[in-house]
Amino acid sequence: MNIGELRQDYKKETLDEKDVNQNPIEQFKLWFNEAIISKLLEPNAFCLSTIHNNSPESRIVLLKEINDNGFVFFTNYNSAKGKQISINNNVSLNFLWLELERQVRIEGVAEKISALESDIYFYSRPIGSQIGAIVSEQSEIIESRSILEEALNIAEQKYKIEKPIRPEHWGGYIVKPRLIEFWQGRSSRLHDRISFELVDGSWMISRLSP
Amino acid sequence: MNIGELRQDYKKETLDEKDVNQNPIEQFKLWFNEAIISKLLEPNAFCLSTIHNNSPESRIVLLKEINDNGFVFFTNYNSAKGKQISINNNVSLNFLWLELERQVRIEGVAEKISALESDIYFYSRPIGSQIGAIVSEQSEIIESRSILEEALNIAEQKYKIEKPIRPEHWGGYIVKPRLIEFWQGRSSRLHDRISFELVDGSWMISRLSP
Repeated sequence: MNIGELRQDYKKETLDEKDVNQNPIEQFKLWFNEAIISKLLEPNAFCLSTIHNNSPESRIVLLKEINDNGFVFFTNYNSAKGKQISINNNVSLNFLWLELERQVRIEGVAEKISALESDIYFYSRPIGSQIGAIVSEQSEIIESRSILEEALNIAEQKYKIEKPIRPEHWGGYIVKPRLIEFWQGRSSRLHDRISFELVDGSWMISRLSP
Repeated sequence: MNIGELRQDYKKETLDEKDVNQNPIEQFKLWFNEAIISKLLEPNAFCLSTIHNNSPESRIVLLKEINDNGFVFFTNYNSAKGKQISINNNVSLNFLWLELERQVRIEGVAEKISALESDIYFYSRPIGSQIGAIVSEQSEIIESRSILEEALNIAEQKYKIEKPIRPEHWGGYIVKPRLIEFWQGRSSRLHDRISFELVDGSWMISRLSP
């Protein structure tokens, strides 16, 4: 099979400067909601990129909240991404909703949310996920899968008796955006790209060449 | 709808150190092939991240070739990503095949392929895509969509008479990997993460904590 021949013409939707909400976070919620209504698989999965030694690093993360200030996700603060954010908190987010021929590109800074907010989310998770967060030394090299399974078994026994407590090194980040771009695939690669950039506290809207 | 409650348990497949191909590019081809066979929508779409002013930037790009040296995609060399790569060619790639509960993370350097190789791919594209590549000033701000459509109309008339020629500023990059990680979702967030890192010309295989 020749990969070069994988080619799709995008004909589903259009995006116009006149139709977008003037607040890009509201516009994001609109598209996100359409992704949920369309029953897309994990519509809240996005590619999070950080910087390490002057190189980008990327991984998939799940969006857990959107509010007026930005986009919230949770992780181990000692994970590779956590360490990278502690040195340079510039990040980018990329949401891809292929079935809707849509992409949202976000750039901004990541900041830790409060311990209280992290608690609220941590204790709302199923107990299995709470234990998973306690057990995993995210991104560290491990000798074998069995070590991981054993640690989980021991923890599961332990937390039949006591209640899990959120580890201090596990919590949320909010990404405060300075740029949000909405990309709608169009025919003949004349895609619609509407970009919002924060300039002196106001969102400037532009159309970009595809 | 509460985004925090979007939660999936991954149960489809497993990934073991003993089962992976010792060459990560071959292992990538295996997974990529399974994504094609599974009829995933645009299995060759990936998130490409670059660095601009000490911040990561990300966008979706289509993989057009895999060879022993790496991963090839095409773009306008004057686009934002092209300019960024000319300053810092460290990039990351993220492939997400949600239906297979799989992700591949790649880090490496991007290098221009030869003009001849770019020609071969350019002229293999449908004429509409060739004209699209000629017309679009990728990532530049444009006043309105109609300007774009007019430019395309004029070009379409022109190229009814003459043959399109690949612009010098349009061509391919190959990303030569130094790290490739295969992520297979597993139950209770005990995901399998097998990482290949290039050390002194050899691929070192490790399992990472999920």
